[in-house]
Amino acid sequence: MQRRPFLKTALGATLAAGLSRAEEPSPRKLGWALVGLGSLSTNQIAPAFAKCRFSKLSAVVTGTPAKGVKWREQYGLSEKQVYNYENFDSILNDPTIDVVYIVLPNSMHCDFVIRAAKAGKHVFCEKPMANSADECRRMIEACKTAKRQLGIGYRCQREPHHVEAIRFAREKVFGEVRHVEAAFGFKSGDPKQWRLRKALAGGGALMDVGVYALQACRYLIGEEPSEVSAIETKTDPVKFAEVDETINWVMKFPSGRTANCMTTYNLNGCNFFTATAERGRFGMEPAYSYDGLKGWTSDPKRPLDPPATDHFAVEMDAFSEAILNDKPFEPAGEEGLRDMLVIEAIYRSIANGKVEKVAAQ
Amino acid sequence: MQRRPFLKTALGATLAAGLSRAEEPSPRKLGWALVGLGSLSTNQIAPAFAKCRFSKLSAVVTGTPAKGVKWREQYGLSEKQVYNYENFDSILNDPTIDVVYIVLPNSMHCDFVIRAAKAGKHVFCEKPMANSADECRRMIEACKTAKRQLGIGYRCQREPHHVEAIRFAREKVFGEVRHVEAAFGFKSGDPKQWRLRKALAGGGALMDVGVYALQACRYLIGEEPSEVSAIETKTDPVKFAEVDETINWVMKFPSGRTANCMTTYNLNGCNFFTATAERGRFGMEPAYSYDGLKGWTSDPKRPLDPPATDHFAVEMDAFSEAILNDKPFEPAGEEGLRDMLVIEAIYRSIANGKVEKVAAQ
Repeated sequence: MQRRPFLKTALGATLAAGLSRAEEPSPRKLGWALVGLGSLSTNQIAPAFAKCRFSKLSAVVTGTPAKGVKWREQYGLSEKQVYNYENFDSILNDPTIDVVYIVLPNSMHCDFVIRAAKAGKHVFCEKPMANSADECRRMIEACKTAKRQLGIGYRCQREPHHVEAIRFAREKVFGEVRHVEAAFGFKSGDPKQWRLRKALAGGGALMDVGVYALQACRYLIGEEPSEVSAIETKTDPVKFAEVDETINWVMKFPSGRTANCMTTYNLNGCNFFTATAERGRFGMEPAYSYDGLKGWTSDPKRPLDPPATDHFAVEMDAFSEAILNDKPFEPAGEEGLRDMLVIEAIYRSIANGKVEKVAAQ
Repeated sequence: MQRRPFLKTALGATLAAGLSRAEEPSPRKLGWALVGLGSLSTNQIAPAFAKCRFSKLSAVVTGTPAKGVKWREQYGLSEKQVYNYENFDSILNDPTIDVVYIVLPNSMHCDFVIRAAKAGKHVFCEKPMANSADECRRMIEACKTAKRQLGIGYRCQREPHHVEAIRFAREKVFGEVRHVEAAFGFKSGDPKQWRLRKALAGGGALMDVGVYALQACRYLIGEEPSEVSAIETKTDPVKFAEVDETINWVMKFPSGRTANCMTTYNLNGCNFFTATAERGRFGMEPAYSYDGLKGWTSDPKRPLDPPATDHFAVEMDAFSEAILNDKPFEPAGEEGLRDMLVIEAIYRSIANGKVEKVAAQ
């Protein structure tokens, strides 16, 4: 890793301030504002800042004053560092905030990403990127106009097992990957959570966890799927009245490679990918949990067993580093858009009972 | 196992002869006629008779005189025990033949099963049972009319790993099985083989090896699928001009359980099933090979690791025992018909680009 990143002056006042600090021995840390203090922020993201080299928690945004008090105590934040949804846009005037991390319900991603970009901040947005491809396009456009980076929280793309699996695929270590199976699901708890409300979540299991399986297929095959066919199953039409409970789908890629996927909100245990290549197989199970990931391959001499990391610290630091070095971050908004185009094709396939083509980006 | 099976007199002259032999200490062996001396008969089935307790090779039927000579030498058969396709129907007059085992190209199964039944023989037929559900119905009817048993060569249903996996499913050892993934494929060799000719094989990978994956889903879930959706992929339209190369499909079962499947004639490595139950997972990989099968479960205290067997000896003996004991054999023709109804729905789904309902039996 580069400890003294080169900074371009075009990055603006905030980063210009960072330039002088970059002369110091310790690395410059970008300030992150965390928007939405639900369980992901509380249990995963906030604790990860302690492990970051280029990122620090500079502010939080919450609609619940009691949470603000608690977070101030826990993370030593000042009153000024706790924003709410009314004064959110005033982050524009806060030079300690370089990055805004959107951890809100899916339906709010679009609006808040655009507002953060308009406030001159780089934006990191949780997956799924938005509720529609149209929203994704608007988010990408807003960040482009504001000359700010938009990163998507696809933590697996920075996680060492997945990174190594992607290398296996790209370098054809087991030959070309011809088929991928991937599934992610769990038994959903609280029936009152926002994830089960279509207006807030956009969809159910597919939007929330199926997107991990879709991601795995796309980055292991290295192409965009051309056609999808999907079946939806609902065994609890009360709890899952508004969103999908279980979806099974198959995908065809232009080169003739294929993928089988499954996602569910009503069963624990499906948490894997398996890549079948011309001369071997490799996979992970569990593949998408926050920790305890396990890889395997068909060749004991080529294990898939890198050291574990904190997924959130790694991805936040990668985004900070990209900004500090003025390099484009991946996965960016376009990657979120690509997934959303497939997700929309899957929902169309279910609605129409037909094989559907994936729309062009 | 029962060493002295009880025999009903209604079984006819051949079995009546067996009754007196059943008084002897060694078990009565039924005589099998092997029809079609391709690689399966040569390498798997014929050598398996040496391990059988209730079955012996009594005749072969071949259109290649040179094969007849070779088999006579290898298995000590007399000239009379080698039939050809012209004098096939004269097996009627051969009391040493109790069972006719059809190991011909798929398109010939229907005709030869019906002729064997008409000759008064019990019939064991390789998978896939036939080229269409209509043929399956005619085969079932013919055996019913002749009062002879019709068994289908679904060897996995008698293989100890699969038997134990089915027990896990039926007894809900890991809770109810909610989702199954299954795939079977291999890289097909000789481009001139009958399996690549639609008129002989009825279809490609799906008919030949995909049926194993379909079987696994059906016997692990224990229901008939209600809907299927499939995508076909062809990367070698010359070699696979007449039959399917790769098919991916998803299935929905009436109770809301699901399955993802894949089959191919153009990739080695996919040879597994994985069952996800409410409180654990189990599976096999490889799952469908003639030997070297491996099982696994999510609970080290409940392994899936029974002793290996010769699949062909076990299934042939099971069929012989059923006949000796006048008990209905499973899997019978109805089981082959059930698979064929799903296979036809899969081909319809590909042809129409739509989700298809599976026709009623």
